[in-house]
Amino acid sequence: MTLPAGQSKMRRAAADLALAERPAMGERWRRVRDLLSARRLDAVLVSDPYDVRYLSGFTGDDTYLIIGHEAGLICTDSRYWAQVADEVTGLELVRTERLLEDTLAAVAAHWGKGVVLGFQGTHLSYATYRRLRRLHSGGLRTVGDAVTALRQVKDGAEVARIRRAAQLTDAALQAVVEAGLVGRSERDVAWQIERELHERGAQGLAFPSIVASGAWGALPHATPRDRPIERNELVVIDTGATFDGYRSDITRTLATGELDEELRHVYEVVLRAQQAGLAAVRGGVDGKAVDAAARTVITEAGYGDYFGHGTGHGVGLEIHELPRLGRLRGDPLAAGMVVTVEPGIYLEGRGGVRIEDTVLVTNDGCEILTAFPKELRVVA
Amino acid sequence: MTLPAGQSKMRRAAADLALAERPAMGERWRRVRDLLSARRLDAVLVSDPYDVRYLSGFTGDDTYLIIGHEAGLICTDSRYWAQVADEVTGLELVRTERLLEDTLAAVAAHWGKGVVLGFQGTHLSYATYRRLRRLHSGGLRTVGDAVTALRQVKDGAEVARIRRAAQLTDAALQAVVEAGLVGRSERDVAWQIERELHERGAQGLAFPSIVASGAWGALPHATPRDRPIERNELVVIDTGATFDGYRSDITRTLATGELDEELRHVYEVVLRAQQAGLAAVRGGVDGKAVDAAARTVITEAGYGDYFGHGTGHGVGLEIHELPRLGRLRGDPLAAGMVVTVEPGIYLEGRGGVRIEDTVLVTNDGCEILTAFPKELRVVA
Repeated sequence: MTLPAGQSKMRRAAADLALAERPAMGERWRRVRDLLSARRLDAVLVSDPYDVRYLSGFTGDDTYLIIGHEAGLICTDSRYWAQVADEVTGLELVRTERLLEDTLAAVAAHWGKGVVLGFQGTHLSYATYRRLRRLHSGGLRTVGDAVTALRQVKDGAEVARIRRAAQLTDAALQAVVEAGLVGRSERDVAWQIERELHERGAQGLAFPSIVASGAWGALPHATPRDRPIERNELVVIDTGATFDGYRSDITRTLATGELDEELRHVYEVVLRAQQAGLAAVRGGVDGKAVDAAARTVITEAGYGDYFGHGTGHGVGLEIHELPRLGRLRGDPLAAGMVVTVEPGIYLEGRGGVRIEDTVLVTNDGCEILTAFPKELRVVA
Repeated sequence: MTLPAGQSKMRRAAADLALAERPAMGERWRRVRDLLSARRLDAVLVSDPYDVRYLSGFTGDDTYLIIGHEAGLICTDSRYWAQVADEVTGLELVRTERLLEDTLAAVAAHWGKGVVLGFQGTHLSYATYRRLRRLHSGGLRTVGDAVTALRQVKDGAEVARIRRAAQLTDAALQAVVEAGLVGRSERDVAWQIERELHERGAQGLAFPSIVASGAWGALPHATPRDRPIERNELVVIDTGATFDGYRSDITRTLATGELDEELRHVYEVVLRAQQAGLAAVRGGVDGKAVDAAARTVITEAGYGDYFGHGTGHGVGLEIHELPRLGRLRGDPLAAGMVVTVEPGIYLEGRGGVRIEDTVLVTNDGCEILTAFPKELRVVA
């Protein structure tokens, strides 16, 4: 894997400056420009690679965008110039050696030294901010996560990719059920999921799968072990696929035989909590209300202390993105957002249950994109 | 995948405060304490998850460490409490709901409100820095990348893991050669590598493999395509394995038949450049000197404009870490560091050649950890 620090001089390509050239990007750039107007900025430096991809189509890293009212720049080193030519239209390529220095030189050349520039305070490191502050003679203001927040509401093409990613995980889980669980290692099951996703055309996993059997299931973020899965326990499987950059996220908890009464009861409670959470999702509701709907079921059943994480999060180019659906932080939901609903109960030393869907928020509810069945299922 | 925002109250566990309990960690903590003394800090907030792992053994994310002269804290939410108990000794667990707020409350409880705290300015975002500044009433100073830089020199256990990761990629490349290339898609070759690594016990890839045939090889960071590999072209394969958290990085360029004279010549130039780079590696040398040694060969052959990236980088828990070996930035090398040497020449529209090894720096040279042969090899 190569790193930058090349040798060609920075120079500007004769790219077309018209920002409205690509229809999808045109709409996204329009929303960035509205943000510039609202914040009284001349331009914004986009450094988060997921936002760079969203606003340019460029799929590499180590690249900055500058979006202004009229023009936009994409600034990157020689490793990526051919890829920019392949993936990006409507932005002027700035060929960099030193990313920040050369980007700011291009900004000054375009907009003048007094330009008021926004930056992504939730992404840029403190050290890079200090260098930016030193190198940039104009105004400088954080936009916080406002550019990232533009990704929350998905367009049709984005939803289609997430839908496909969700179908791929449904199929992979079905293949796991058909292959059985008892006697296989957690690692082997995780690997089967990866194989099934690859064979069905996924780019890869959305994140490293969690396959946690027995007491290990009480760790919400357990790593798969070489230990064989036994009879009569619960197995938490939390996985996701990436399809053309977009992700899905699903958790199912399977039984490998007879369960004691409490684990069966806990499963029922989590399923009811998840259904209550789903029923609370719709445009106009706050994420905290969805969390409360799911959490109330668990708390009233006496397991409130055993559900320590938030109820859900946005999914898209990133596996965890805005909005948040938690007890401490909830963001307003709107039609077109894609979020998870995933309550769980974790009993130390005994096991865990989590049930999670990825859903599309609509004006009057939600559409569940992950279709794998949720009733308690015995897979030996 | 779950997110935090739980419901149990923050409370301190009755953990052992003795920092010297685990021998490997004791040595690492000693170096952090030397840094605290040199910078006149009472404690440092470690936020980079790779540094958290290095200094605690904890393999999750969303977790902060506080290392002081006498005591150390590990601060995380309920998703990870059981995992901390499993993986970490000698640090006191601070059970958080709100990571930064609860961490700083614990710091004030331990060290008092006037504590002078360091933070990782190259990792912490500007927005988190601003919250830290607001919440923390004591002194606050960036340590830049000084904590991260402690990871540069590897101990024996770390080198053993990287060595194993390198052996795994050697074996995977050998399997690719045996399976052949012509007629297979780049994506299929990349998938074979992933499969071979899994079957040999790797945790996974170190990064998404690059398999780039023909003209696509001119993109240093090309993504594998579904296009079949043809006869008589070059195929750049850049891959790495992760073994118990530690990574390897290797690039080989294979031929699928007859090459024209220029491509054969370019291969010879890159191989000579890579050997010159390797010959320049030893403790006490600056990374810029290694870059210069490799780059001079390429420049003198007339291809200087076609080698745009740096010659190498450190490898360890991260695929790209300190030190840097580039034209614009080089860091001093020392025995025990593990770095790549990877010059390349990229001819737009025609193809590319890159040859890369992962090597262990010694006092009088280096030991090459990636053993796959480097002479031009025809694989049909």
